[in-house]
Amino acid sequence: MYINAMNWSQVEEHIKKDDRCIFPLGCIEQHAHLSLGTDMILSEKIAMDAAEPLGIPVFPAMPYGLTAGFVDFPGTISLRIRTYIAFIEDILDGLYHSGFRRILIVNGHGGNAPAGVVISEWMNRNRDASVKMYDWWRAPKTMAKVLEIDSRASHASWMENFPWTRLEGVVQPQHVKDCVDLNGLARVDAGRKRERLGDGCCHGLYERPDTDMLAIWEIAVEETRAQLENDWH
Amino acid sequence: MYINAMNWSQVEEHIKKDDRCIFPLGCIEQHAHLSLGTDMILSEKIAMDAAEPLGIPVFPAMPYGLTAGFVDFPGTISLRIRTYIAFIEDILDGLYHSGFRRILIVNGHGGNAPAGVVISEWMNRNRDASVKMYDWWRAPKTMAKVLEIDSRASHASWMENFPWTRLEGVVQPQHVKDCVDLNGLARVDAGRKRERLGDGCCHGLYERPDTDMLAIWEIAVEETRAQLENDWH
Amino acid sequence: MYINAMNWSQVEEHIKKDDRCIFPLGCIEQHAHLSLGTDMILSEKIAMDAAEPLGIPVFPAMPYGLTAGFVDFPGTISLRIRTYIAFIEDILDGLYHSGFRRILIVNGHGGNAPAGVVISEWMNRNRDASVKMYDWWRAPKTMAKVLEIDSRASHASWMENFPWTRLEGVVQPQHVKDCVDLNGLARVDAGRKRERLGDGCCHGLYERPDTDMLAIWEIAVEETRAQLENDWH
Amino acid sequence: MYINAMNWSQVEEHIKKDDRCIFPLGCIEQHAHLSLGTDMILSEKIAMDAAEPLGIPVFPAMPYGLTAGFVDFPGTISLRIRTYIAFIEDILDGLYHSGFRRILIVNGHGGNAPAGVVISEWMNRNRDASVKMYDWWRAPKTMAKVLEIDSRASHASWMENFPWTRLEGVVQPQHVKDCVDLNGLARVDAGRKRERLGDGCCHGLYERPDTDMLAIWEIAVEETRAQLENDWH
Amino acid sequence: MYINAMNWSQVEEHIKKDDRCIFPLGCIEQHAHLSLGTDMILSEKIAMDAAEPLGIPVFPAMPYGLTAGFVDFPGTISLRIRTYIAFIEDILDGLYHSGFRRILIVNGHGGNAPAGVVISEWMNRNRDASVKMYDWWRAPKTMAKVLEIDSRASHASWMENFPWTRLEGVVQPQHVKDCVDLNGLARVDAGRKRERLGDGCCHGLYERPDTDMLAIWEIAVEETRAQLENDWH
Amino acid sequence: MYINAMNWSQVEEHIKKDDRCIFPLGCIEQHAHLSLGTDMILSEKIAMDAAEPLGIPVFPAMPYGLTAGFVDFPGTISLRIRTYIAFIEDILDGLYHSGFRRILIVNGHGGNAPAGVVISEWMNRNRDASVKMYDWWRAPKTMAKVLEIDSRASHASWMENFPWTRLEGVVQPQHVKDCVDLNGLARVDAGRKRERLGDGCCHGLYERPDTDMLAIWEIAVEETRAQLENDWH
Repeated sequence: MYINAMNWSQVEEHIKKDDRCIFPLGCIEQHAHLSLGTDMILSEKIAMDAAEPLGIPVFPAMPYGLTAGFVDFPGTISLRIRTYIAFIEDILDGLYHSGFRRILIVNGHGGNAPAGVVISEWMNRNRDASVKMYDWWRAPKTMAKVLEIDSRASHASWMENFPWTRLEGVVQPQHVKDCVDLNGLARVDAGRKRERLGDGCCHGLYERPDTDMLAIWEIAVEETRAQLENDWH
Repeated sequence: MYINAMNWSQVEEHIKKDDRCIFPLGCIEQHAHLSLGTDMILSEKIAMDAAEPLGIPVFPAMPYGLTAGFVDFPGTISLRIRTYIAFIEDILDGLYHSGFRRILIVNGHGGNAPAGVVISEWMNRNRDASVKMYDWWRAPKTMAKVLEIDSRASHASWMENFPWTRLEGVVQPQHVKDCVDLNGLARVDAGRKRERLGDGCCHGLYERPDTDMLAIWEIAVEETRAQLENDWH
Repeated sequence: MYINAMNWSQVEEHIKKDDRCIFPLGCIEQHAHLSLGTDMILSEKIAMDAAEPLGIPVFPAMPYGLTAGFVDFPGTISLRIRTYIAFIEDILDGLYHSGFRRILIVNGHGGNAPAGVVISEWMNRNRDASVKMYDWWRAPKTMAKVLEIDSRASHASWMENFPWTRLEGVVQPQHVKDCVDLNGLARVDAGRKRERLGDGCCHGLYERPDTDMLAIWEIAVEETRAQLENDWH
Repeated sequence: MYINAMNWSQVEEHIKKDDRCIFPLGCIEQHAHLSLGTDMILSEKIAMDAAEPLGIPVFPAMPYGLTAGFVDFPGTISLRIRTYIAFIEDILDGLYHSGFRRILIVNGHGGNAPAGVVISEWMNRNRDASVKMYDWWRAPKTMAKVLEIDSRASHASWMENFPWTRLEGVVQPQHVKDCVDLNGLARVDAGRKRERLGDGCCHGLYERPDTDMLAIWEIAVEETRAQLENDWH
Repeated sequence: MYINAMNWSQVEEHIKKDDRCIFPLGCIEQHAHLSLGTDMILSEKIAMDAAEPLGIPVFPAMPYGLTAGFVDFPGTISLRIRTYIAFIEDILDGLYHSGFRRILIVNGHGGNAPAGVVISEWMNRNRDASVKMYDWWRAPKTMAKVLEIDSRASHASWMENFPWTRLEGVVQPQHVKDCVDLNGLARVDAGRKRERLGDGCCHGLYERPDTDMLAIWEIAVEETRAQLENDWH
Repeated sequence: MYINAMNWSQVEEHIKKDDRCIFPLGCIEQHAHLSLGTDMILSEKIAMDAAEPLGIPVFPAMPYGLTAGFVDFPGTISLRIRTYIAFIEDILDGLYHSGFRRILIVNGHGGNAPAGVVISEWMNRNRDASVKMYDWWRAPKTMAKVLEIDSRASHASWMENFPWTRLEGVVQPQHVKDCVDLNGLARVDAGRKRERLGDGCCHGLYERPDTDMLAIWEIAVEETRAQLENDWH
């Protein structure tokens, strides 16, 4: 249940019975021809869809994340890592203070990975909590489905092109983009990264039929929901 | 235009013609019987409604803000001030790096006021930019309309009860809440604050007719839009 | 009692009987033709005068505060907000460790307002303490007296021109300064602020008879003393 | 060439001809029956062996890294992530100020991965530099060799048991350890992690013949050296 | 000239002719039977007396410093070192922005020594400035005079007992205090330090005739003045 | 015993009987014609030699320290003081969490002195621990021996020229370097410092017979060992 659809006394009542919640992590960064908010949109929606039948509160996605490499693409906003770790600490402290003890962080952006280190540090100070850092798009079953459909998949390619991340009136390229040299991106600044990336997509087709996309989504929702239901502590 | 409805090359094109953008600040905190997301919902919506005819990009609202005083109401999440100032710095750096030079920060939560200090420091390092910290709900015309309707108005009272912040199935109290002692709240911790605040509302009725609310909204949208159109630099 | 007139064992004895103390906040910043130390001088003196008959310890004023907007006026020193919040935290920790539980922060500079957020956070970690952030010059009775005398009053105008803030040999302008556009100051850097502010005064006459000033001071001392005597916890 | 075998004027001369250097990252953490310094020993030695014929300066390994998850195993020292990112920034600033522009960071510990984010941020401020974050043990050829020998390999298993990381007088277990549940480790604090990990090894045999180990080492040295020789900028 | 006796335009005029200023560092900490403000009082007064005939601006002393070791003596306030270094950076930035290029930091408290490291870092970023960290009481001639009078001298002993640091009505002990074991203090927390220190004095008599004290002061003023006059850059 | 020669369970066993350990602090900085790693080499070796007969664990030296003044000599790496204090805090927290309660910090570099302030703060939070900051080269007996041999001794002079810090193939100058003006170094940036320092040595001969050096070393080892054996808490 979206936290914005609750008031504080409803949350208080809920926690008495169930100490689970979800916190989605997004990023506002270039996704080639797709929405700048792709990672935020997907992490929040997968969280909502997974939580819906369970009634677990879903906090608003953190829109902004770590994406220093893409800041030369306008519209991309990167937090400094020192800011981000402070933010993650505060969120965990706040959820804990509210009474939550089992927290699923649904992450929509690979670059946010240092949050996992913060979680590890934080749990040492809050030893009765359990926190999962969950990259929904590369969970085993979800990624297996992606690869089954088309292994040429990457950042900003078809695998992120859902009905809710594509933009009205924007026509996607029809070719298969060659795989960019990922090591060549990692060792240089955002300027050279932009030059080497062109439109921002890393590899593959830019769109596939919605039957493919919805099949992936269905698996991803189930796999995320299983994280809520099983294997805490 | 919501940034999530744009891709990076659209932003790049836009900035060539117009270097304005909007960044809304919210807060997830107790609002008595209303949504925990009230401040986030209102700041993002007022920004969207004001920007719409102008085509100015609106970045996703920062959901989380400064609300240490309310953390004993479950569901309330407060960032530490040190985290928040780092966050505001990063956002301004990111918007500037993208090319924006006139930035309207539409703030929906009084507690976020230290952002104004950060802006002041930041502009000294970026002297060709102009940044407005704009508390939409207490802009002169908007507040005058509120007071004209009913001066017994406060945090979590009728003046924040819009069709988009009230919750389905939640019945609002029908009495006028006496004004709490605000100084008595300020000098104590969150525990004593909660005791003294009861349901979380500070003063006044809990709801008023939508004709009142929409009249306020209309004025607020116009007043916010005027901020976008006039008096930069 | 000024802390510099005490030694540690006297403080230890005092706290056994009374856990109150005062900490004044100042700022070294342009005050047009008045002393750069105006805010420090006034906050420390009002604290001393208010505390005197009560024997409550007054710690030395923190001379430096938050004034990023005025740094292009030479002699103005602004701390970064991140430094300032760390400083306020340390002072509160130190006073608490000494044994003080009721702390009156007498603030002489509007720009120091983020200290209030730090206090709010700090009290959540020290729930048996009570801390008041008190802007002496805009307390209700004091401000009422100012407005009664002359409502054209502002930063660096007559209302800050006391016998202890004016400078020997400096002649004050004799005209009424028109009110500067405060919104126009807030949205720009310190350079444009200085251009728009001229001599640094915001509005009003530069001096008034000492009978006016001493009448204000008397009320302010009483109103500050009442803060020490009443309404803790 | 080890930097400890050079003086400052030799470094100055060297940089005039070659702006490459190596900085190894280690960690002091439990490695089951192996040395607590395993990651430091291996990253520094692989760096030295790779650099030797090229005469490239190798700075002393940073012994300490990010290992919050293992702190309940005595002897393990974990830096906070906020400290670590500051450290990495300082080292890069220092190497750059000395004149180095091509920097190979040879990392010996998976948990140090956030250094990669710091590098990405840092290169945006130093756009004429190129920095590689290189996890020597999972470089493609090295890892292929490991898996070819025995795919049951993990933290503190045989794959880290080199002549220079094993301890005199310590007898290694002779069985194959079952694979621990890595997700089950990630979601809990260091106390539960220790309970679930037993001796600290994650999976596999504890030792294999030195012919295997030296074959891996030889490939790893060559693969690391290739990083020094090729594909900068 | 005390900065509180100047306004901004006077500072602006002054800097056009002379880019020197003084910034005194104090500390509020136990000084046995003497004022808690001893270090602040002495550093500000020595600065004022030295600067007086030269007309060099003296900024208000920073009252608070680093004294973690004495916090178990009530009235002692210690800043964290991380706060203090940020504070020193900000002050230097502020003085530099005002136009000062030769800055004498007159330090009254040995524990503030890390300021010297901050100065060293800061000068690398501001290479046209010259900053002296000057411990007035242990400058060669001043300390020689102290030792000539009575070599049994220490923190809170007679050597800090000036007419302006002793307290009305407080009778000083008349014996010579044996020297405490300074290494024994350094290796333990503030609680054990207090136990071992008794009244807080480290060694020696508690008072000497004012002829001695004024002789020391005269030398110290001259020696401090020489720092202002000679050997910049 | 070098910690790299132990595994975690050996440390655990050791702490049950003896809660002492050693942590050496070094610095990578210019030492004229000697190794850039001189301070790291000496602090780690003196720690190892002192601890050897006692079986006390020696953690790997922190190679990097505070040396802002020498950064214009290539190969010198200086951490920012803010980073360094965070590092020292983390190390102490880590050693404490492992179970150590008596910690000898063997420091090889004068510039690292702010670590002492961090220790003082840290012990207030960990009041059952005892931590010594020990500058081995200026301990009383060691320094007396140095001065007995040749009082013209300084940074990078003969007194740091041991068989394990001198470099193969580097011929040392044969003259006595005049004493540089140390105050003249302290008040300027790293650029002017380099100009004034020439080769980096401050005063004295560059080498002396090994009989002298080994006599110093023998005394230093014994004096350091006595720190381990005596006077804790």
